[in-house]
Amino acid sequence: MGEFELINHYFAAAPCAQGGEGVALGIGDDCALLDLPPGEQLAVSTDTLVAGVHFPTVCEPLLLGQRALAVAASDLAAMGATAIGFTLALTLPDVGPDWLGAFADGLSRMAQRCRMSLIGGDTTRGPLSITVTVFGRVPAGQALRRSGARPGDLLCVGGTLGKAAGALPLVLGEREAPAEQAEPLLAHYWSPLPQLELGQRLRGHATAALDISDGLLADCGHIAKASGVALEVNLAQVPVSPALQAFLGPDGARLAALTGGDDYVLAFTLPAAALAELEGVELHVIGRVLDGQGVTLRDAQGQDITPAQRGYQHFRETP
Amino acid sequence: MGEFELINHYFAAAPCAQGGEGVALGIGDDCALLDLPPGEQLAVSTDTLVAGVHFPTVCEPLLLGQRALAVAASDLAAMGATAIGFTLALTLPDVGPDWLGAFADGLSRMAQRCRMSLIGGDTTRGPLSITVTVFGRVPAGQALRRSGARPGDLLCVGGTLGKAAGALPLVLGEREAPAEQAEPLLAHYWSPLPQLELGQRLRGHATAALDISDGLLADCGHIAKASGVALEVNLAQVPVSPALQAFLGPDGARLAALTGGDDYVLAFTLPAAALAELEGVELHVIGRVLDGQGVTLRDAQGQDITPAQRGYQHFRETP
Repeated sequence: MGEFELINHYFAAAPCAQGGEGVALGIGDDCALLDLPPGEQLAVSTDTLVAGVHFPTVCEPLLLGQRALAVAASDLAAMGATAIGFTLALTLPDVGPDWLGAFADGLSRMAQRCRMSLIGGDTTRGPLSITVTVFGRVPAGQALRRSGARPGDLLCVGGTLGKAAGALPLVLGEREAPAEQAEPLLAHYWSPLPQLELGQRLRGHATAALDISDGLLADCGHIAKASGVALEVNLAQVPVSPALQAFLGPDGARLAALTGGDDYVLAFTLPAAALAELEGVELHVIGRVLDGQGVTLRDAQGQDITPAQRGYQHFRETP
Repeated sequence: MGEFELINHYFAAAPCAQGGEGVALGIGDDCALLDLPPGEQLAVSTDTLVAGVHFPTVCEPLLLGQRALAVAASDLAAMGATAIGFTLALTLPDVGPDWLGAFADGLSRMAQRCRMSLIGGDTTRGPLSITVTVFGRVPAGQALRRSGARPGDLLCVGGTLGKAAGALPLVLGEREAPAEQAEPLLAHYWSPLPQLELGQRLRGHATAALDISDGLLADCGHIAKASGVALEVNLAQVPVSPALQAFLGPDGARLAALTGGDDYVLAFTLPAAALAELEGVELHVIGRVLDGQGVTLRDAQGQDITPAQRGYQHFRETP
């Protein structure tokens, strides 16, 4: 048995590879087989993380395993899907069993939180790179798309924004912060929790949804474009975590919340009447949908303070 | 729009990305959505090709696009599945529009042959690497597994073997050959045709199947192990192409056919009674299934000429 076959057997023995609901056949044959309940559709998404581009080349493999799966599973949340499983394509330099064990542990922890199984993969030699393809199920016709926002809808997000962007200088070792500031930011960066339950609750209520990966304003632009509407964001309503405010100050925290990537928090639109049916769900109304196009940012006085479009850059590609 | 968003739009415009049977939602949202007919299961497989490991760093992007999809789709053939679609995770160095256009063209050509659609993907900066995840459908319980071979079954393959291994010195520029030898070998290396129709015909007949990627003897070992049986291969019955024999001579051709990787031809077992029902299907009986374990190779006189197990190495990881 070759080195990579050994590694594949190693992953096949991980807790997350022991099958689960919807997995008819897991690792070990030419394909995995999934069962889909009648009346449901399969949701699929692929994400690649490259060392030195999407995460620092030197990092904790356990954290990396958690993050790689979380980032991909967040796309299932954005569609309102229930997670089933994932495949892992791992390109590896020469790493030892400690690295592999910790990485598989991180994967398994996140898989358990998301209730999904590792169903297949491929391991090759090369510069460290991780491609995760996730699978979920959603009742036919009920997936949350980007294209259904209607004028009059409210614009909402599922949690505080900017933490991952705020964490970046800590991740890169460029800055330090007291533990009470650093810990929540780093926890969010390395282990964002895909909002799967929120996505499922929004089915039948939200008119459009996505997960914020490029930054709030850029991603609102995606909804606006796909739906053929304008979105208005009220800066004073955008939720920012206390740790981020303490670390970056109010202005820096606001900028991170508006333009920072990697939040993996859902942004969505819904009619105001839906709020009553979503009692108990954490959501923050931050604006509204209007006729027109593009995204407008307004301050507490209602002034248009929209930054130039060129200001929105991928944080995710800058490390 | 960033460079990679442009590239993703470029792929979204490729002929293979225009949807097809079973694709409810293609590229452009957080997930793609697939429909599965009632009573069918989804088959999933992932393959990564890394430049300098699985193909030469300098090569024709059109051929690379064809090969990347063919290698992955071959796993669907091995399960007896009907192809639906694939996702593409592409890690790219700085390449120009000519490269991208030719690569997308190669993908589209193979996608058309396999009747499958590009349904999503991710593009990142880094050393050239291609991860393709393929999706197919197969009637529930009818997928061809590796584990069902029974003593008394015949061992068969779906075509001539060794061409890709024979092509390797040509691909790497280490040797030259006259066109009538080189062309069929290079065609098979760069554009192996996944045996999807054969796999589908074998449903309900074959007791075990896989696609030969590690080499005939190594892959027969996988069937033997998964099924808990012994396999006997008769060297004289192993089909070898005339071009390969002319290029490598009879001994070299035989070695390539037995141990060369990357054939992507199906190997399968079936009861002799099934042959009558498979009239018109290209298949070559090369041996039989016995009680016991492991793989035995016999010459025309019935002598055991099995090479030492250590002799089976991945051609796929040596370039």
